[in-house]
Amino acid sequence: MWRLYHFTLCPFSRKVRFALAVKGVTHELVMERPWEKRSAFTALNPAGQTPVMQQGHIVLADSVAILEHFEEVVERTGLLGPKPEDRAETRRLVAWFDQKFYAEVNALLLAERMYKRAVLRASPDAAVLRQAGRMADVHLDYIDYLLERRAWLGGNQFGLADIAAAAHLSVADYLSGIDWDGHDPAKTWYSAIKSRPTFRPLLAERFEGLQPPPHYDKLDF
Amino acid sequence: MWRLYHFTLCPFSRKVRFALAVKGVTHELVMERPWEKRSAFTALNPAGQTPVMQQGHIVLADSVAILEHFEEVVERTGLLGPKPEDRAETRRLVAWFDQKFYAEVNALLLAERMYKRAVLRASPDAAVLRQAGRMADVHLDYIDYLLERRAWLGGNQFGLADIAAAAHLSVADYLSGIDWDGHDPAKTWYSAIKSRPTFRPLLAERFEGLQPPPHYDKLDF
Repeated sequence: MWRLYHFTLCPFSRKVRFALAVKGVTHELVMERPWEKRSAFTALNPAGQTPVMQQGHIVLADSVAILEHFEEVVERTGLLGPKPEDRAETRRLVAWFDQKFYAEVNALLLAERMYKRAVLRASPDAAVLRQAGRMADVHLDYIDYLLERRAWLGGNQFGLADIAAAAHLSVADYLSGIDWDGHDPAKTWYSAIKSRPTFRPLLAERFEGLQPPPHYDKLDF
Repeated sequence: MWRLYHFTLCPFSRKVRFALAVKGVTHELVMERPWEKRSAFTALNPAGQTPVMQQGHIVLADSVAILEHFEEVVERTGLLGPKPEDRAETRRLVAWFDQKFYAEVNALLLAERMYKRAVLRASPDAAVLRQAGRMADVHLDYIDYLLERRAWLGGNQFGLADIAAAAHLSVADYLSGIDWDGHDPAKTWYSAIKSRPTFRPLLAERFEGLQPPPHYDKLDF
Protein backbone atom coordinates (compact mmCIF):
# COMPACT_ATOMS: atom_id res chain seq x y z
CA MET A 1 0.00 0.00 0.00
CA TRP A 2 1.09 3.58 -0.60
CA ARG A 3 2.32 5.49 2.42
CA LEU A 4 1.75 9.26 2.49
CA TYR A 5 3.99 11.45 4.63
CA HIS A 6 1.92 14.54 5.41
CA PHE A 7 1.50 17.35 7.90
CA THR A 8 -2.04 18.14 9.09
CA LEU A 9 -1.84 21.86 8.29
CA CYS A 10 0.25 21.54 5.09
CA PRO A 11 -2.01 22.69 2.22
CA PHE A 12 -0.03 20.65 -0.32
CA SER A 13 -0.56 17.50 1.77
CA ARG A 14 -4.28 18.30 1.99
CA LYS A 15 -4.46 18.76 -1.78
CA VAL A 16 -2.93 15.32 -2.33
CA ARG A 17 -5.11 13.64 0.34
CA PHE A 18 -8.34 15.12 -1.05
CA ALA A 19 -7.39 14.17 -4.64
CA LEU A 20 -6.40 10.61 -3.69
CA ALA A 21 -9.69 10.18 -1.78
CA VAL A 22 -11.66 11.34 -4.84
CA LYS A 23 -9.68 8.98 -7.08
CA GLY A 24 -10.03 6.11 -4.59
CA VAL A 25 -6.29 5.53 -4.08
CA THR A 26 -5.93 3.89 -0.67
CA HIS A 27 -2.92 4.89 1.41
CA GLU A 28 -1.73 4.98 4.99
CA LEU A 29 -0.79 8.26 6.64
CA VAL A 30 2.42 9.15 8.43
CA MET A 31 2.38 12.50 10.23
CA GLU A 32 5.58 14.46 9.65
CA ARG A 33 6.61 17.78 11.21
CA PRO A 34 8.89 19.10 8.41
CA TRP A 35 10.62 21.69 10.62
CA GLU A 36 12.07 18.86 12.75
CA LYS A 37 14.19 17.83 9.70
CA ARG A 38 14.07 14.13 10.58
CA SER A 39 16.98 12.53 8.71
CA ALA A 40 14.99 9.52 7.44
CA PHE A 41 12.49 11.96 5.93
CA THR A 42 15.17 14.17 4.35
CA ALA A 43 16.62 11.01 2.79
CA LEU A 44 13.24 10.39 1.12
CA ASN A 45 12.88 14.00 -0.02
CA PRO A 46 16.01 16.19 -0.01
CA ALA A 47 13.73 19.24 -0.27
CA GLY A 48 12.54 18.32 3.25
CA GLN A 49 8.91 19.12 2.45
CA THR A 50 5.61 17.28 2.77
CA PRO A 51 3.88 15.58 0.98
CA VAL A 52 5.90 12.52 -0.01
CA MET A 53 4.48 9.20 -1.17
CA GLN A 54 6.28 5.90 -0.91
CA GLN A 55 5.57 2.35 -2.02
CA GLY A 56 8.55 -0.04 -1.87
CA HIS A 57 11.43 1.61 -3.75
CA ILE A 58 9.17 4.15 -5.47
CA VAL A 59 9.29 7.58 -3.85
CA LEU A 60 7.23 10.48 -5.16
CA ALA A 61 7.94 14.01 -3.91
CA ASP A 62 6.32 17.36 -4.71
CA SER A 63 2.52 17.60 -4.75
CA VAL A 64 2.32 18.41 -8.47
CA ALA A 65 4.55 15.45 -9.41
CA ILE A 66 2.50 13.17 -7.13
CA LEU A 67 -0.83 14.18 -8.63
CA GLU A 68 0.36 14.09 -12.26
CA HIS A 69 1.61 10.58 -11.51
CA PHE A 70 -1.77 9.36 -10.25
CA GLU A 71 -3.53 11.05 -13.20
CA GLU A 72 -1.27 8.95 -15.46
CA VAL A 73 -1.57 5.60 -13.70
CA VAL A 74 -5.16 5.74 -12.33
CA GLU A 75 -7.37 6.51 -15.29
CA ARG A 76 -10.72 6.61 -13.44
CA THR A 77 -11.95 9.96 -12.13
CA GLY A 78 -9.70 12.22 -14.20
CA LEU A 79 -9.26 15.46 -12.29
CA LEU A 80 -7.69 17.70 -14.95
CA GLY A 81 -10.57 17.99 -17.43
CA PRO A 82 -11.48 16.40 -20.77
CA LYS A 83 -9.69 18.61 -23.35
CA PRO A 84 -6.08 19.89 -23.45
CA GLU A 85 -7.33 23.48 -22.95
CA ASP A 86 -9.37 22.42 -19.91
CA ARG A 87 -6.32 20.74 -18.45
CA ALA A 88 -4.15 23.82 -19.06
CA GLU A 89 -6.74 25.98 -17.26
CA THR A 90 -6.89 23.51 -14.35
CA ARG A 91 -3.11 23.48 -14.07
CA ARG A 92 -2.96 27.30 -14.22
CA LEU A 93 -5.34 27.52 -11.26
CA VAL A 94 -3.54 24.81 -9.27
CA ALA A 95 -0.34 26.86 -9.70
CA TRP A 96 -2.30 30.00 -8.69
CA PHE A 97 -3.26 28.48 -5.32
CA ASP A 98 -0.01 26.56 -4.77
CA GLN A 99 2.13 29.61 -5.46
CA LYS A 100 0.21 32.88 -5.11
CA PHE A 101 -2.31 31.94 -2.42
CA TYR A 102 0.36 30.04 -0.53
CA ALA A 103 2.95 32.87 -0.64
CA GLU A 104 0.46 35.68 0.01
CA VAL A 105 -1.75 34.02 2.64
CA ASN A 106 -0.84 30.56 3.97
CA ALA A 107 2.92 31.05 4.35
CA LEU A 108 2.18 34.07 6.57
CA LEU A 109 -0.57 32.36 8.60
CA LEU A 110 1.46 29.19 9.07
CA ALA A 111 4.49 31.19 10.26
CA GLU A 112 2.54 33.46 12.62
CA ARG A 113 -0.37 31.35 13.88
CA MET A 114 0.98 27.79 13.64
CA TYR A 115 4.77 27.80 13.95
CA LYS A 116 5.14 30.80 16.30
CA ARG A 117 2.25 29.84 18.57
CA ALA A 118 2.28 26.04 18.63
CA VAL A 119 6.02 25.42 18.18
CA LEU A 120 7.89 28.51 19.43
CA ARG A 121 5.21 29.56 21.99
CA ALA A 122 5.60 33.16 20.79
CA SER A 123 3.05 35.84 19.84
CA PRO A 124 2.03 36.39 16.23
CA ASP A 125 2.79 39.68 14.46
CA ALA A 126 -0.56 41.47 14.07
CA ALA A 127 0.61 43.46 11.03
CA VAL A 128 1.53 40.28 9.17
CA LEU A 129 -1.84 38.73 10.05
CA ARG A 130 -3.67 41.82 8.73
CA GLN A 131 -1.69 41.62 5.49
CA ALA A 132 -2.59 37.92 5.10
CA GLY A 133 -6.26 38.81 5.70
CA ARG A 134 -6.20 41.53 3.05
CA MET A 135 -4.68 39.16 0.50
CA ALA A 136 -7.12 36.36 1.40
CA ASP A 137 -9.93 38.79 0.59
CA VAL A 138 -8.43 39.54 -2.84
CA HIS A 139 -8.24 35.78 -3.51
CA LEU A 140 -11.88 35.31 -2.42
CA ASP A 141 -12.82 38.07 -4.88
CA TYR A 142 -11.10 36.13 -7.66
CA ILE A 143 -12.89 32.90 -6.64
CA ASP A 144 -16.22 34.79 -6.71
CA TYR A 145 -15.33 36.15 -10.16
CA LEU A 146 -14.61 32.66 -11.52
CA LEU A 147 -17.74 31.12 -9.96
CA GLU A 148 -19.96 33.81 -11.47
CA ARG A 149 -18.84 32.47 -14.88
CA ARG A 150 -18.42 28.72 -14.24
CA ALA A 151 -20.02 25.92 -12.21
CA TRP A 152 -16.66 24.95 -10.71
CA LEU A 153 -13.35 26.79 -10.50
CA GLY A 154 -11.67 25.15 -13.48
CA GLY A 155 -14.76 24.90 -15.72
CA ASN A 156 -18.00 22.96 -15.81
CA GLN A 157 -16.73 19.94 -13.89
CA PHE A 158 -15.42 19.48 -10.36
CA GLY A 159 -11.69 18.89 -10.57
CA LEU A 160 -8.18 19.58 -9.34
CA ALA A 161 -8.61 23.37 -9.36
CA ASP A 162 -11.41 22.96 -6.76
CA ILE A 163 -9.33 20.47 -4.80
CA ALA A 164 -6.28 22.76 -4.69
CA ALA A 165 -8.36 25.82 -3.75
CA ALA A 166 -10.26 23.93 -1.02
CA ALA A 167 -7.03 22.52 0.41
CA HIS A 168 -5.42 25.96 0.68
CA LEU A 169 -8.58 27.71 1.92
CA SER A 170 -9.19 25.06 4.56
CA VAL A 171 -5.74 25.68 6.06
CA ALA A 172 -6.27 29.46 6.03
CA ASP A 173 -9.73 28.93 7.57
CA TYR A 174 -8.32 26.69 10.33
CA LEU A 175 -5.88 29.50 11.13
CA SER A 176 -8.71 32.09 11.34
CA GLY A 177 -7.47 33.79 8.17
CA ILE A 178 -10.70 33.81 6.16
CA ASP A 179 -13.62 36.22 6.48
CA TRP A 180 -16.39 34.73 4.33
CA ASP A 181 -18.70 37.74 4.64
CA GLY A 182 -19.54 39.30 1.29
CA HIS A 183 -18.29 36.31 -0.70
CA ASP A 184 -21.51 34.37 -1.37
CA PRO A 185 -20.33 32.51 -4.51
CA ALA A 186 -17.16 31.31 -2.74
CA LYS A 187 -19.18 30.40 0.37
CA THR A 188 -21.76 28.36 -1.56
CA TRP A 189 -18.98 26.55 -3.46
CA TYR A 190 -17.01 25.82 -0.25
CA SER A 191 -20.14 24.57 1.52
CA ALA A 192 -20.64 22.04 -1.31
CA ILE A 193 -17.00 20.95 -0.95
CA LYS A 194 -17.35 20.62 2.84
CA SER A 195 -20.29 18.24 2.41
CA ARG A 196 -18.21 15.75 0.36
CA PRO A 197 -17.33 12.54 2.26
CA THR A 198 -13.89 12.67 0.59
CA PHE A 199 -13.16 16.07 2.21
CA ARG A 200 -14.76 15.70 5.65
CA PRO A 201 -11.94 13.61 7.22
CA LEU A 202 -9.55 16.55 6.67
CA LEU A 203 -11.89 18.89 8.56
CA ALA A 204 -12.13 16.47 11.49
CA GLU A 205 -8.38 16.59 12.24
CA ARG A 206 -6.86 18.89 14.85
CA PHE A 207 -3.27 19.98 15.36
CA GLU A 208 -2.22 19.81 19.01
CA GLY A 209 -2.61 23.05 20.94
CA LEU A 210 -4.24 24.94 18.10
CA GLN A 211 -8.03 25.00 17.71
CA PRO A 212 -9.79 26.24 14.57
CA PRO A 213 -12.64 28.78 14.86
CA PRO A 214 -16.13 27.34 15.63
CA HIS A 215 -17.41 27.71 12.02
CA TYR A 216 -14.43 25.75 10.60
CA ASP A 217 -16.07 22.34 10.07
CA LYS A 218 -19.73 23.50 9.89
CA LEU A 219 -21.59 23.18 6.58
CA ASP A 220 -23.58 26.32 7.40
CA PHE A 221 -20.95 28.95 8.19
CA MET B 1 1.44 30.82 -34.83
CA TRP B 2 1.89 30.73 -31.07
CA ARG B 3 2.96 33.97 -29.44
CA LEU B 4 5.13 33.74 -26.32
CA TYR B 5 5.17 36.64 -23.85
CA HIS B 6 8.50 36.39 -22.07
CA PHE B 7 11.09 38.42 -20.19
CA THR B 8 14.76 37.92 -21.13
CA LEU B 9 15.92 37.25 -17.55
CA CYS B 10 12.83 35.32 -16.41
CA PRO B 11 13.99 31.73 -15.73
CA PHE B 12 10.48 30.35 -16.27
CA SER B 13 10.35 32.01 -19.71
CA ARG B 14 13.78 30.55 -20.52
CA LYS B 15 12.62 27.08 -19.48
CA VAL B 16 9.63 27.30 -21.84
CA ARG B 17 11.72 28.73 -24.72
CA PHE B 18 14.40 26.04 -24.43
CA ALA B 19 11.78 23.26 -24.22
CA LEU B 20 9.79 24.58 -27.19
CA ALA B 21 12.98 24.83 -29.24
CA VAL B 22 13.87 21.20 -28.43
CA LYS B 23 10.33 20.10 -29.32
CA GLY B 24 10.34 22.18 -32.51
CA VAL B 25 7.29 24.31 -31.62
CA THR B 26 7.64 27.54 -33.60
CA HIS B 27 6.51 30.73 -31.88
CA GLU B 28 7.02 34.48 -32.02
CA LEU B 29 8.40 36.34 -29.02
CA VAL B 30 6.92 39.37 -27.28
CA MET B 31 9.16 40.94 -24.64
CA GLU B 32 7.23 41.82 -21.49
CA ARG B 33 8.48 43.66 -18.39
CA PRO B 34 6.14 42.14 -15.78
CA TRP B 35 6.78 44.87 -13.17
CA GLU B 36 5.20 47.45 -15.53
CA LYS B 37 1.85 45.65 -15.02
CA ARG B 38 0.64 46.42 -18.55
CA SER B 39 -3.15 46.06 -18.47
CA ALA B 40 -3.39 44.05 -21.72
CA PHE B 41 -0.90 41.58 -20.25
CA THR B 42 -2.71 41.32 -16.89
CA ALA B 43 -5.90 40.61 -18.86
CA LEU B 44 -4.12 37.61 -20.44
CA ASN B 45 -2.70 36.40 -17.12
CA PRO B 46 -4.23 37.79 -13.92
CA ALA B 47 -1.16 36.52 -12.05
CA GLY B 48 0.80 39.15 -14.01
CA GLN B 49 3.73 36.80 -14.60
CA THR B 50 5.70 35.65 -17.63
CA PRO B 51 5.62 33.30 -19.52
CA VAL B 52 2.24 33.34 -21.26
CA MET B 53 1.45 31.69 -24.60
CA GLN B 54 -1.36 32.74 -26.88
CA GLN B 55 -2.81 31.47 -30.11
CA GLY B 56 -6.18 32.92 -31.09
CA HIS B 57 -8.53 32.52 -28.10
CA ILE B 58 -6.28 29.95 -26.40
CA VAL B 59 -4.20 31.43 -23.59
CA LEU B 60 -1.79 29.30 -21.56
CA ALA B 61 -0.31 30.72 -18.35
CA ASP B 62 2.18 29.27 -15.85
CA SER B 63 5.30 27.56 -17.15
CA VAL B 64 4.34 24.11 -15.79
CA ALA B 65 0.85 24.28 -17.36
CA ILE B 66 2.40 25.44 -20.66
CA LEU B 67 4.92 22.60 -20.82
CA GLU B 68 2.47 19.88 -19.71
CA HIS B 69 0.22 21.14 -22.52
CA PHE B 70 2.88 20.77 -25.19
CA GLU B 71 3.85 17.34 -23.83
CA GLU B 72 0.22 16.33 -24.37
CA VAL B 73 -0.33 17.80 -27.85
CA VAL B 74 3.16 17.44 -29.41
CA GLU B 75 4.08 13.79 -29.03
CA ARG B 76 7.54 13.96 -30.63
CA THR B 77 10.55 14.57 -28.38
CA GLY B 78 8.91 13.70 -25.05
CA LEU B 79 10.78 15.56 -22.34
CA LEU B 80 9.46 13.87 -19.20
CA GLY B 81 10.88 10.37 -19.63
CA PRO B 82 9.57 6.98 -20.79
CA LYS B 83 8.08 5.45 -17.60
CA PRO B 84 5.72 6.95 -14.97
CA GLU B 85 8.51 6.81 -12.35
CA ASP B 86 10.89 8.64 -14.70
CA ARG B 87 8.29 11.32 -15.26
CA ALA B 88 7.68 11.71 -11.50
CA GLU B 89 11.43 12.16 -10.97
CA THR B 90 11.63 14.72 -13.79
CA ARG B 91 8.68 16.66 -12.35
CA ARG B 92 10.21 16.55 -8.84
CA LEU B 93 13.40 18.14 -10.16
CA VAL B 94 11.57 20.73 -12.25
CA ALA B 95 9.72 21.75 -9.05
CA TRP B 96 13.07 21.77 -7.23
CA PHE B 97 14.53 24.36 -9.60
CA ASP B 98 11.30 26.33 -10.13
CA GLN B 99 10.65 26.63 -6.41
CA LYS B 100 13.79 26.07 -4.31
CA PHE B 101 16.48 27.36 -6.66
CA TYR B 102 14.24 30.27 -7.67
CA ALA B 103 13.38 31.29 -4.08
CA GLU B 104 16.87 30.76 -2.67
CA VAL B 105 18.97 32.14 -5.55
CA ASN B 106 17.25 33.75 -8.53
CA ALA B 107 14.59 35.77 -6.68
CA LEU B 108 17.41 37.40 -4.68
CA LEU B 109 19.68 38.01 -7.69
CA LEU B 110 16.83 39.37 -9.83
CA ALA B 111 15.75 41.76 -7.04
CA GLU B 112 19.27 42.97 -6.23
CA ARG B 113 21.17 42.85 -9.53
CA MET B 114 18.43 43.25 -12.14
CA TYR B 115 15.51 45.21 -10.67
CA LYS B 116 17.48 47.46 -8.30
CA ARG B 117 20.27 48.23 -10.73
CA ALA B 118 18.59 48.33 -14.13
CA VAL B 119 15.15 49.58 -13.10
CA LEU B 120 15.49 51.51 -9.82
CA ARG B 121 19.12 52.62 -10.42
CA ALA B 122 19.93 51.66 -6.82
CA SER B 123 22.79 49.67 -5.26
CA PRO B 124 22.42 45.99 -4.50
CA ASP B 125 22.56 44.72 -0.89
CA ALA B 126 25.89 42.86 -0.55
CA ALA B 127 24.59 40.64 2.29
CA VAL B 128 21.71 39.40 0.14
CA LEU B 129 24.09 38.71 -2.77
CA ARG B 130 26.39 36.70 -0.46
CA GLN B 131 23.41 34.67 0.76
CA ALA B 132 22.34 33.94 -2.86
CA GLY B 133 25.93 32.85 -3.63
CA ARG B 134 26.02 30.46 -0.67
CA MET B 135 22.73 28.88 -1.69
CA ALA B 136 23.81 28.62 -5.36
CA ASP B 137 26.81 26.64 -4.15
CA VAL B 138 24.56 24.21 -2.23
CA HIS B 139 22.48 23.72 -5.39
CA LEU B 140 25.64 23.08 -7.47
CA ASP B 141 26.62 20.43 -4.91
CA TYR B 142 23.26 18.74 -5.43
CA ILE B 143 23.68 18.89 -9.23
CA ASP B 144 27.17 17.32 -8.86
CA TYR B 145 25.67 14.61 -6.61
CA LEU B 146 22.99 13.75 -9.21
CA LEU B 147 25.46 13.78 -12.13
CA GLU B 148 27.81 11.40 -10.31
CA ARG B 149 24.94 8.86 -10.43
CA ARG B 150 23.22 9.64 -13.75
CA ALA B 151 24.06 10.76 -17.28
CA TRP B 152 21.54 13.61 -17.08
CA LEU B 153 19.81 15.27 -14.15
CA GLY B 154 16.52 13.37 -14.39
CA GLY B 155 17.98 10.00 -15.43
CA ASN B 156 19.67 8.48 -18.45
CA GLN B 157 18.10 10.78 -21.01
CA PHE B 158 18.27 14.52 -21.57
CA GLY B 159 14.93 16.03 -20.58
CA LEU B 160 12.93 18.66 -18.78
CA ALA B 161 14.95 18.43 -15.54
CA ASP B 162 18.04 19.50 -17.52
CA ILE B 163 16.07 22.20 -19.31
CA ALA B 164 14.67 23.65 -16.05
CA ALA B 165 18.07 23.54 -14.33
CA ALA B 166 19.85 25.16 -17.29
CA ALA B 167 17.21 27.88 -17.55
CA HIS B 168 17.55 28.80 -13.87
CA LEU B 169 21.36 28.49 -13.80
CA SER B 170 21.74 30.62 -16.93
CA VAL B 171 19.85 33.49 -15.27
CA ALA B 172 21.93 33.21 -12.09
CA ASP B 173 25.09 33.04 -14.23
CA TYR B 174 24.06 36.16 -16.20
CA LEU B 175 23.68 37.96 -12.86
CA SER B 176 27.19 36.86 -11.70
CA GLY B 177 25.68 34.55 -9.08
CA ILE B 178 27.46 31.32 -9.99
CA ASP B 179 31.00 30.29 -9.04
CA TRP B 180 31.68 27.14 -11.08
CA ASP B 181 35.02 26.36 -9.36
CA GLY B 182 35.03 22.97 -7.67
CA HIS B 183 31.90 21.77 -9.47
CA ASP B 184 33.34 19.76 -12.36
CA PRO B 185 30.33 17.48 -12.96
CA ALA B 186 27.97 20.47 -13.11
CA LYS B 187 30.42 22.36 -15.32
CA THR B 188 30.81 19.52 -17.83
CA TRP B 189 27.03 19.08 -17.97
CA TYR B 190 26.41 22.82 -18.45
CA SER B 191 29.07 23.02 -21.15
CA ALA B 192 27.21 20.30 -23.09
CA ILE B 193 23.95 22.24 -22.66
CA LYS B 194 25.61 25.48 -23.83
CA SER B 195 26.74 23.82 -27.06
CA ARG B 196 23.16 22.93 -28.08
CA PRO B 197 21.80 25.03 -30.96
CA THR B 198 18.43 25.07 -29.15
CA PHE B 199 19.99 26.81 -26.13
CA ARG B 200 22.49 29.18 -27.74
CA PRO B 201 19.94 31.87 -28.78
CA LEU B 202 19.11 32.42 -25.09
CA LEU B 203 22.77 33.04 -24.30
CA ALA B 204 23.06 35.58 -27.11
CA GLU B 205 20.41 37.92 -25.66
CA ARG B 206 21.25 40.92 -23.50
CA PHE B 207 19.06 42.97 -21.17
CA GLU B 208 19.61 46.71 -21.58
CA GLY B 209 22.11 48.24 -19.20
CA LEU B 210 23.12 44.96 -17.64
CA GLN B 211 26.04 42.93 -19.02
CA PRO B 212 26.75 39.33 -18.01
CA PRO B 213 30.27 38.29 -16.90
CA PRO B 214 32.75 37.44 -19.74
CA HIS B 215 32.47 33.65 -19.26
CA TYR B 216 28.65 33.69 -19.55
CA ASP B 217 28.27 32.52 -23.16
CA LYS B 218 31.63 30.72 -23.55
CA LEU B 219 31.66 26.94 -23.95
CA ASP B 220 34.96 26.79 -22.09
CA PHE B 221 34.35 28.61 -18.81
